Amino acid sequence: MEIKLSEIKNFLSDSIIDIKGEKNNDIILKYLKNPSEVDEYTLDWINNKGTEKQLKAEQSKAKVIITDNTVSYSNKLGSQNKVLIFVANPKLAIAKVGNHFFKVKSAPCIHPTAIIHPQAIIGNNVFIGPYVSVGACSIGNNVEIHGNTIIGDNVTIKNEVIINSNVILGAEGLGCERESNGNLVTFPHFGGVIIEELVELGSGTIIAKGALSETRIGRGSKLNVNCFVAHNVKIGANAWISPKVNIAGSVNIGDNVTIFSGAIIREQLKIGNTAIVGMGSVVTKNIPDNETWIGNPAKLLAK
Amino acid sequence: MEIKLSEIKNFLSDSIIDIKGEKNNDIILKYLKNPSEVDEYTLDWINNKGTEKQLKAEQSKAKVIITDNTVSYSNKLGSQNKVLIFVANPKLAIAKVGNHFFKVKSAPCIHPTAIIHPQAIIGNNVFIGPYVSVGACSIGNNVEIHGNTIIGDNVTIKNEVIINSNVILGAEGLGCERESNGNLVTFPHFGGVIIEELVELGSGTIIAKGALSETRIGRGSKLNVNCFVAHNVKIGANAWISPKVNIAGSVNIGDNVTIFSGAIIREQLKIGNTAIVGMGSVVTKNIPDNETWIGNPAKLLAK
Amino acid sequence: MEIKLSEIKNFLSDSIIDIKGEKNNDIILKYLKNPSEVDEYTLDWINNKGTEKQLKAEQSKAKVIITDNTVSYSNKLGSQNKVLIFVANPKLAIAKVGNHFFKVKSAPCIHPTAIIHPQAIIGNNVFIGPYVSVGACSIGNNVEIHGNTIIGDNVTIKNEVIINSNVILGAEGLGCERESNGNLVTFPHFGGVIIEELVELGSGTIIAKGALSETRIGRGSKLNVNCFVAHNVKIGANAWISPKVNIAGSVNIGDNVTIFSGAIIREQLKIGNTAIVGMGSVVTKNIPDNETWIGNPAKLLAK
Repeated sequence: MEIKLSEIKNFLSDSIIDIKGEKNNDIILKYLKNPSEVDEYTLDWINNKGTEKQLKAEQSKAKVIITDNTVSYSNKLGSQNKVLIFVANPKLAIAKVGNHFFKVKSAPCIHPTAIIHPQAIIGNNVFIGPYVSVGACSIGNNVEIHGNTIIGDNVTIKNEVIINSNVILGAEGLGCERESNGNLVTFPHFGGVIIEELVELGSGTIIAKGALSETRIGRGSKLNVNCFVAHNVKIGANAWISPKVNIAGSVNIGDNVTIFSGAIIREQLKIGNTAIVGMGSVVTKNIPDNETWIGNPAKLLAK
Repeated sequence: MEIKLSEIKNFLSDSIIDIKGEKNNDIILKYLKNPSEVDEYTLDWINNKGTEKQLKAEQSKAKVIITDNTVSYSNKLGSQNKVLIFVANPKLAIAKVGNHFFKVKSAPCIHPTAIIHPQAIIGNNVFIGPYVSVGACSIGNNVEIHGNTIIGDNVTIKNEVIINSNVILGAEGLGCERESNGNLVTFPHFGGVIIEELVELGSGTIIAKGALSETRIGRGSKLNVNCFVAHNVKIGANAWISPKVNIAGSVNIGDNVTIFSGAIIREQLKIGNTAIVGMGSVVTKNIPDNETWIGNPAKLLAK
Repeated sequence: MEIKLSEIKNFLSDSIIDIKGEKNNDIILKYLKNPSEVDEYTLDWINNKGTEKQLKAEQSKAKVIITDNTVSYSNKLGSQNKVLIFVANPKLAIAKVGNHFFKVKSAPCIHPTAIIHPQAIIGNNVFIGPYVSVGACSIGNNVEIHGNTIIGDNVTIKNEVIINSNVILGAEGLGCERESNGNLVTFPHFGGVIIEELVELGSGTIIAKGALSETRIGRGSKLNVNCFVAHNVKIGANAWISPKVNIAGSVNIGDNVTIFSGAIIREQLKIGNTAIVGMGSVVTKNIPDNETWIGNPAKLLAK
């Protein structure tokens, strides 16, 4: 992998505030590396959330460093002929560069062990891994479905979705009614699942089918590993959901929500836009827009 | 799917309190539908837990509605020629109708990719899905075992059990003893698992084998997705266990218990009959019969 | 299975404090059994954590009993010709005996349905179960990898490791940066996973690959079912981690740590050597060596 500095500059052009020390656009970059292993071919970066940023920039062995403007282009940096690329959020910039230039995508193919329902509709440029089962569903373009995943009937997966290993879409919910003698009758579910564009689902995540309508994951949302989303939940756009989050039936989640690890959300609740739910929280009430709630039971975090 | 009103009436005959507006037993019902999509061929119902029930009944486009007796057979309903079927618990009635008339059962078959131990004993009318591994176990009649599930040796699955995808029965427990130098020695487990009749296990649920005796899930219990039941746990009849519940070793659970999402129960505890454990609770003490406990640590909920 | 008393004595010789009633080294032992099923061929033991130990020893139907020295070799025991083997920790002794004499190890083989990357390096005496996928990784000697497990590229598994069913090593982390318009950009991960010698991983456990360096599980650690270990976590030696524990990115855990069921640990924290984290705890601060923390949020447990 050899990338010219000019390519990086071009790719990040909308984000770059300034560049210092730039003399040679043909500098070659080969790696992203851990701080202790950075060398002259590494594209290095100074984490905006870190400390001693100036020192880290000056001690880096890299020729090119992405940083925010709390680092100054000191004489020391100049004498090292370092190139500094200034952006508002270096971590975001390096994530984009990493995804674009360095991440190896799974080549489109359907593994011969994948079991595909004859009525499944599968788009272009799709990867389906080993031991995947695909029901009578609809899969868009540029979708990745990794090993051991099970896609039920009546599931719609839109374009640019990544589904990691061991995911289940369209799982059977087990809501029950209890009879007066104690016996449990499961409520049958006939609905589907809709996964909007650009969603990514972590390994082991389970999305239940809706009861009569559908369960829906909004555009660009990212659900980390081992989450559970119950029947008829609606999640808006750009939800960032950490591992092992547990969302009960018919919960309605707005846009741009962040839910941290292991939180549990009671059935039927509404979580407003841009709300934040803390790690390990047990949410028993609706959360208005823009609020942060934490604890068991969860309460509004005083500012 | 075409069902005559007379068939519904017959099936629910033990539950029906009254019927109003009944003129034509040949009315045909084709669907259960989401409220916004109800049409004249839908069997509609008024949720006993809902609000504005009278209005919902009067505005429904369905010809036949199951309701409780808080809705009255108004002039408006009469002029619409609607049939109202009155029962004590409409949600329970619709669940039963849905399971009986509308739910498509998996046709009995053993998928060619399933790996079956030569000493496995398998009953009649059994479905075993793709990529399932079945050990030297005993499986009753009318059992469904869905994709990717692993059934270990020394597991007994009785009649009418449904095991959803990616379940593990007879998982290895990892209880340990720590030596004085810090090293861990796992305690070996040689026992089995018994799944009684009419149990349903959600996707991703794991039941550990017993240490020397067995782990047992009682008749009619329903465990939702991603639960874990450790070695030697005994669960009574009709337990309703929500997603991601975590039950430690040798816990003894009575009959008709309800445990909500993500609760954790410490090893060796006793949970009494008809007890209720709240969402996200961390149970560190025995719970007597009929009590509701919530919180971390869980405490008796004052009435 | 027939084991002579002399073999047990030999195997436990480093732990035995005393033996009473010993007349015949040729006594044959055939089983470990549940207390209610103990017979004369059972190697019985008195749990050091139990009650009424003297009574249990005197009522046991076994000829040979492992116990601690709170049980005395009474006249009754003598008249029954019982052999008592005294050790400091009978549960530890019986665990070792069980693992050594009674546990049936999976015979080395690679199941024909396992998918092995051509660049995978696989040691001697390795078991790989059905429907396992193995990437371009390195696997040591005497390793067991059970059914449906997925091993990614750039994973190193050292000797004597046991990986139970449905485990994922090298899962994709889903850390994100949020753009000012709300869009989420996943941070790409290129690192690996290192599993040191003698580790055991429970079914359904997921270990994420590191971002640029590796995620590491230390020698002899045991992680029970459904744990999640995020990118760049380092776990020391002999960690005992209960089911459903959730460890966020870059957490650094010392040696000989014990973490109970369902605990959550925030990213970047340090957990000191020999620390203990209680069941269901939500850890938001560093924990010093030797301390026990419990609760949500977790706090130091007063002694």
